[in-house]
Amino acid sequence: MASHFADRLCEAVKCKRTPLVVGLDPVYGRLPSAIKSHRDMNDEFDAASAVDAIFDFCTQTMRIIAPMVPAVKINIAFFEKYLWEGIESYYALISEADDLGLEVIGDVKRGDIGHTAELYAAAHLENPELVGLEDTLVPDAITINGYAGTDGIEPFADMAAKQGKGLFVLVRTSNPSAASIQDFADTDGQTMYEKIAEIVNEIATKPERIGSNGYSNVGMVVGGTSPEVATALREKYDKVWFLVPGYGSQGASATDCIRFCKPDGSGASINASRSIIYAYEKPKYKGQFSDDWKRCIEQAVIDAKIDLAKAMQSKL
Amino acid sequence: MASHFADRLCEAVKCKRTPLVVGLDPVYGRLPSAIKSHRDMNDEFDAASAVDAIFDFCTQTMRIIAPMVPAVKINIAFFEKYLWEGIESYYALISEADDLGLEVIGDVKRGDIGHTAELYAAAHLENPELVGLEDTLVPDAITINGYAGTDGIEPFADMAAKQGKGLFVLVRTSNPSAASIQDFADTDGQTMYEKIAEIVNEIATKPERIGSNGYSNVGMVVGGTSPEVATALREKYDKVWFLVPGYGSQGASATDCIRFCKPDGSGASINASRSIIYAYEKPKYKGQFSDDWKRCIEQAVIDAKIDLAKAMQSKL
Repeated sequence: MASHFADRLCEAVKCKRTPLVVGLDPVYGRLPSAIKSHRDMNDEFDAASAVDAIFDFCTQTMRIIAPMVPAVKINIAFFEKYLWEGIESYYALISEADDLGLEVIGDVKRGDIGHTAELYAAAHLENPELVGLEDTLVPDAITINGYAGTDGIEPFADMAAKQGKGLFVLVRTSNPSAASIQDFADTDGQTMYEKIAEIVNEIATKPERIGSNGYSNVGMVVGGTSPEVATALREKYDKVWFLVPGYGSQGASATDCIRFCKPDGSGASINASRSIIYAYEKPKYKGQFSDDWKRCIEQAVIDAKIDLAKAMQSKL
Repeated sequence: MASHFADRLCEAVKCKRTPLVVGLDPVYGRLPSAIKSHRDMNDEFDAASAVDAIFDFCTQTMRIIAPMVPAVKINIAFFEKYLWEGIESYYALISEADDLGLEVIGDVKRGDIGHTAELYAAAHLENPELVGLEDTLVPDAITINGYAGTDGIEPFADMAAKQGKGLFVLVRTSNPSAASIQDFADTDGQTMYEKIAEIVNEIATKPERIGSNGYSNVGMVVGGTSPEVATALREKYDKVWFLVPGYGSQGASATDCIRFCKPDGSGASINASRSIIYAYEKPKYKGQFSDDWKRCIEQAVIDAKIDLAKAMQSKL
């Protein structure tokens, strides 16, 4: 395992030949009936049963997709719903992903200042050396919220660098009301998200943070739904790796998202969550593979990879 | 128990005659030696031992302060450091606080959009009805990060209203680099934090969110270190309850913080964390009470209450 997160991610992208990342957002009600009908996992209102079900679903899904994609993004909120039971399962899933050779992005969106930020950074970026938790693995990278400014970001960046981990700071989200805050512009026409991008870039481009592939371990989260934003940020921030939500169910096209990639295909991880992991709900795949939910997911990954590859070809 | 969070808080403030809130930020290394030397809690590098120690410290501290203050603020990061072991302890502590009649603010600073925000809201604002977690209590209110805009705040506000809970949205933090982002100003001179305050106020002042005391269940977090900010926000947002960090160790004075209160003493909760819970480290209290750490904490609360009451008197 290379010691720099961006180098590991870069290698994984080359090896799997795609910028696609699969987001795991497991909701009990939407799991395949084969899982929900298992006698140990058939009770949505029993925490252990529900957590076992979403863990089983995620593990099986990762086994299907691991040969095809460089990374998974695990959204901790879907586990946190089950309080500590869910959190234990979240960390167990990271170990499973690691066994499968996947890079893991923990989508935790934590954020705080000073010592509190250090504690969050420890929980999410440092494998614990405590008796009782010693076999636990943390993700390869996490998402954070940088609204508190530089001293809300640096404790995370420092811990990430020390542990060979990565960081993606929220810059521009893809939700409808994001503009009211993030596109807030100053007298020079600079927007809030551009200002945060500038601050993140300053932290990201410190020489000690740059890996041998030229990318920093500190990246940015930017929604794929604004093509002009993508083009501008890609050109401006050469050393930054982008994590791009919004592809698939949220409406960003492959062409929109691929703008975050450099011509060699590196520089961005394009995330699709629901459109992949719930592929078996779609008539398109259901008609083809009937109840074989795993084949549906597999085919959805293949289709998404082709979609992104074609968009990349047209761009070049 | 009244069904509206701001009404409960208002009553508690009247009853305890102080806007003071004690923040629980327990760090193993700083615990009283009486706790750290207990044979079940003397190993900082054993998760169970360390978690037991911080839980015991927080419980004992709450027993001392419960008759004197309306609320505690529990910072989840200090528990999250111990992963699921810590999270279980965080929720257990909420039950202890509830038994002691304290209002509990969960300082969790979560934030996301759409369905993910709903999941976080469920985890932190809705008592779980799941088998295995059914005796768990969630806090009376939580802090959230509103950088995603209205649709990152409303799922929390809706859940809070439904459950008789409260919400404090980060508006202006008290750290040194906050200004670079939060004081970012547009062409009309409105700053980022003022813009967020405006958005929060719009959500807060929907008629169904206002309690019988005139306050909304949706409040704002604003650091106590900027007196002019305090005065302006208090005047502008009549129905908003402020959660004010920064008093004590972070350098905001009682006079600065009290600006967030209305003349009757309602309208703000002024938080002191380290200056109270680690009072036994200070020569001032150590000299007076020697190793009696509980008396040190008790006296620190009494002193802080007097300090705030005096500031309130001078203001009137």
